[in-house]
Amino acid sequence: MERLRQLIIFFFLFLTVLEHASSARILSIAAKPDRHDIAASARWLVSQNIWGVLSTLSIEHNGAPFGNVVSYSDGLPGKGNGIPYFYLTILDPTTRNALKDSRASFAVSESPIGTCKRDPMDPTCSKLTLTGKLLQLGEGSDEEKVAKKALFTKHPEMMDWPKGHEFSVFKLEIINIFLINWYGGAKSVTVDEYLRYKETKVASFL
Amino acid sequence: MERLRQLIIFFFLFLTVLEHASSARILSIAAKPDRHDIAASARWLVSQNIWGVLSTLSIEHNGAPFGNVVSYSDGLPGKGNGIPYFYLTILDPTTRNALKDSRASFAVSESPIGTCKRDPMDPTCSKLTLTGKLLQLGEGSDEEKVAKKALFTKHPEMMDWPKGHEFSVFKLEIINIFLINWYGGAKSVTVDEYLRYKETKVASFL
Repeated sequence: MERLRQLIIFFFLFLTVLEHASSARILSIAAKPDRHDIAASARWLVSQNIWGVLSTLSIEHNGAPFGNVVSYSDGLPGKGNGIPYFYLTILDPTTRNALKDSRASFAVSESPIGTCKRDPMDPTCSKLTLTGKLLQLGEGSDEEKVAKKALFTKHPEMMDWPKGHEFSVFKLEIINIFLINWYGGAKSVTVDEYLRYKETKVASFL
Repeated sequence: MERLRQLIIFFFLFLTVLEHASSARILSIAAKPDRHDIAASARWLVSQNIWGVLSTLSIEHNGAPFGNVVSYSDGLPGKGNGIPYFYLTILDPTTRNALKDSRASFAVSESPIGTCKRDPMDPTCSKLTLTGKLLQLGEGSDEEKVAKKALFTKHPEMMDWPKGHEFSVFKLEIINIFLINWYGGAKSVTVDEYLRYKETKVASFL
């Protein structure tokens, strides 16, 4: 009887440890900023997410908008600069579209971060769309080196992606910021305010 | 000492129950279809997700693509028809864009479903982009009734969204399907094959 009890306890302990291990990512998430700090809220969404949807104008579909799920990084953990960097191949229509017409937008949701308490479209579940130009970085340039380190740190698998696919680094040069992080419509924040925000404020919560 | 031991055990049991409760959604997910069944894979991504990114051509930004995080539904659980329905307000730029130029695309990832084992951009982590026309459904029409039930069942909060915002139902009329669910580039599936697929095959896994 005592044996059985111990076995049951061990099983639950094991389950608990297992679940903690699988939710480790959640535990390393920086705290959500005060909703009144618009720049912080936008930067938090970009620094905490690891994927989003990158939209370009489709060559194949006569200029229709084409959204594509992509991984990205804006910097090393706790040291992001707010600029989303991507690792794209010419085999991907998004890349071909951008090389023809650089107009693009990049959208992320708070939902994957795990902090939303309501529906993904409820205004309290933040969402962000950065509109701008999707530009290829010069191979070997200083910015390309920083971006590659940012990408490979958050997405180590990228280092093993097939060499033959000729992946290269792109960035979104931001022109406009569309953020909803509470009721009352899109919040106002300039690109300058967004880029000048220092992530160290967020990092202190880590 | 025995008291403390009991307290610790109780704490771990409590944690376990809590974590099981929070992962309840994962448990109700239908099994991922065989990757060779392209129509099934695409339909599974649409039926199992509850949000994605809807891209339109921005009026405000001179025709740039504008991706926006939105909730959606393609039907009652296990009874979807593959057509994404949305509940949108004219206060949202996406709605205004679509009413001017209906060209749109809708992108979803396997990542939120919780079944990806690798990076969100690894080809084994499926992703889908439906390109087509974002059309407003006639108020009181049969399709609008079906769509509303589909939306309100998966997103009960929608029923309480402010009446003054004049939300109405839109659908994506699909013209092209872009699916990656394994290595080797986008998979080929026609709109007809996609729409004709019967979700009952998936539902049997429930």
